Amino acid sequence: MVTFHQSGLRVGQGTMKPELKIFKIGGGIIDNESDLLEFIRLFSEIDGPKILVHGGGKGASEMMANLGIAPRMVNGRRITDAVTLDLVTMFYAGKTNKQIVVALQKNGVNALGLSGADGNVIQAAKRPVREIDYGFVGDLSEASVNTDLIRQLLAIGLTPVFCPINHDGMGQLLNTNADTIAASVAKALSPYYAVELHFCFEKRGVLADVNDDKSVITTITLANYGELKESGIIADGMLPKLENAFDALQFGVDKVIIEHALFISEQLKTTLCLN
Amino acid sequence: MVTFHQSGLRVGQGTMKPELKIFKIGGGIIDNESDLLEFIRLFSEIDGPKILVHGGGKGASEMMANLGIAPRMVNGRRITDAVTLDLVTMFYAGKTNKQIVVALQKNGVNALGLSGADGNVIQAAKRPVREIDYGFVGDLSEASVNTDLIRQLLAIGLTPVFCPINHDGMGQLLNTNADTIAASVAKALSPYYAVELHFCFEKRGVLADVNDDKSVITTITLANYGELKESGIIADGMLPKLENAFDALQFGVDKVIIEHALFISEQLKTTLCLN
Repeated sequence: MVTFHQSGLRVGQGTMKPELKIFKIGGGIIDNESDLLEFIRLFSEIDGPKILVHGGGKGASEMMANLGIAPRMVNGRRITDAVTLDLVTMFYAGKTNKQIVVALQKNGVNALGLSGADGNVIQAAKRPVREIDYGFVGDLSEASVNTDLIRQLLAIGLTPVFCPINHDGMGQLLNTNADTIAASVAKALSPYYAVELHFCFEKRGVLADVNDDKSVITTITLANYGELKESGIIADGMLPKLENAFDALQFGVDKVIIEHALFISEQLKTTLCLN
Repeated sequence: MVTFHQSGLRVGQGTMKPELKIFKIGGGIIDNESDLLEFIRLFSEIDGPKILVHGGGKGASEMMANLGIAPRMVNGRRITDAVTLDLVTMFYAGKTNKQIVVALQKNGVNALGLSGADGNVIQAAKRPVREIDYGFVGDLSEASVNTDLIRQLLAIGLTPVFCPINHDGMGQLLNTNADTIAASVAKALSPYYAVELHFCFEKRGVLADVNDDKSVITTITLANYGELKESGIIADGMLPKLENAFDALQFGVDKVIIEHALFISEQLKTTLCLN
């Protein structure tokens, strides 16, 4: 078995796998058009096969407000009822997805927008009702992802752009968290590619001091992640993000990177790896 | 050169071409959910490679009215300004396209929704401003259609579902008439497939007597089309449809069929062919 290392190829468990970069962007960048276009410009410069996963912005909520529709809340949590699902489908699968695809095309990236229903590329399961009925929210497992189709699309030079709308295969659209989509796609593709999963947000990475934007922890391994948790340096909202990231790494994803959406081409960022 | 005829293959100019069926549905069927689902059930039963092109319904106009936005009219014609383009993108590429794709998936059809921007599958040109500035309206030529991508998608068993939103390759989305998209895709694919182009609407076909829904003219050739025009039997709104249809036939499309969206499996319909 060949186990050498060369540009564009990485060694994974004794087999040579091509590299694949998956980027996730969220509402913070989507809501600011010039930031979004700057991210798209930077993303367009990245060589090799790549995938973009985007979340939703404030557009759907703003339109609901303009239409006089109050968001339905249960125990302080927002519920995806039928009206909300309709609006998020229009915004995420329609407006935002096409806005991103058309800008990528302009920048020379052969982007193809996808909801999970398209080509049955992601099939979700409606979240079971326990204490709360979240409504039309879709949960994913690794088996949710149609890796054959994604590999075929990548093979013909396309860059899939996933919106956070999936389906259950039985005619129902469902809303899924974009971090979850990115992690599930990364995990499902890890047997075929050396996957780098990039979570982009409004900070340069995981910060040692939340009040100091420059205090980026550049590398976190599973061993020092435990220490950082115990010492309280990593806490609150960052914890579930990092739990997801280490879960992806343990599943076979090569590397997880947490970085600022507008500085993806720069060195300062947090890289997470198992060891 | 082999020139025999067998199931699923048809002889075209001495070469054997696989069959391809392209269906176009419009707003009349899209606005009625149970009719749309019935059409989708019938469409799902059609064997072999197929493509669906859908127009828009009243949803975008209704939402504009609900938001208190008046449609912009010039000389009695509706203009696609930036606000309108935004809303039709949400409805056509978001809501309607995903509603159709998810229902096709439920019925076992591996549908993949596409705007023209996705995979650069249709690149339009913004309509030049002459007497009227139509705004963000995209015109097509045969060269607009990325036949390579459509053939690749069909080859892996996908059923493309086109919404009437395209792009200009320079970052601008454009709204294009769905009849035009269907005819352009049919013409562009005619060198590779024996294309049957189906225009579905709310009548059983071209009627000899507009007041008698059963007076369907079952076959129209180029020769008797001239007679039907001269005698005034075909007039008004049906004329541009038939002009488009004969243009498609002259370009190489095998057959054009005009039929009721809810009776596509029945015999009564109008078939147009050159001779």
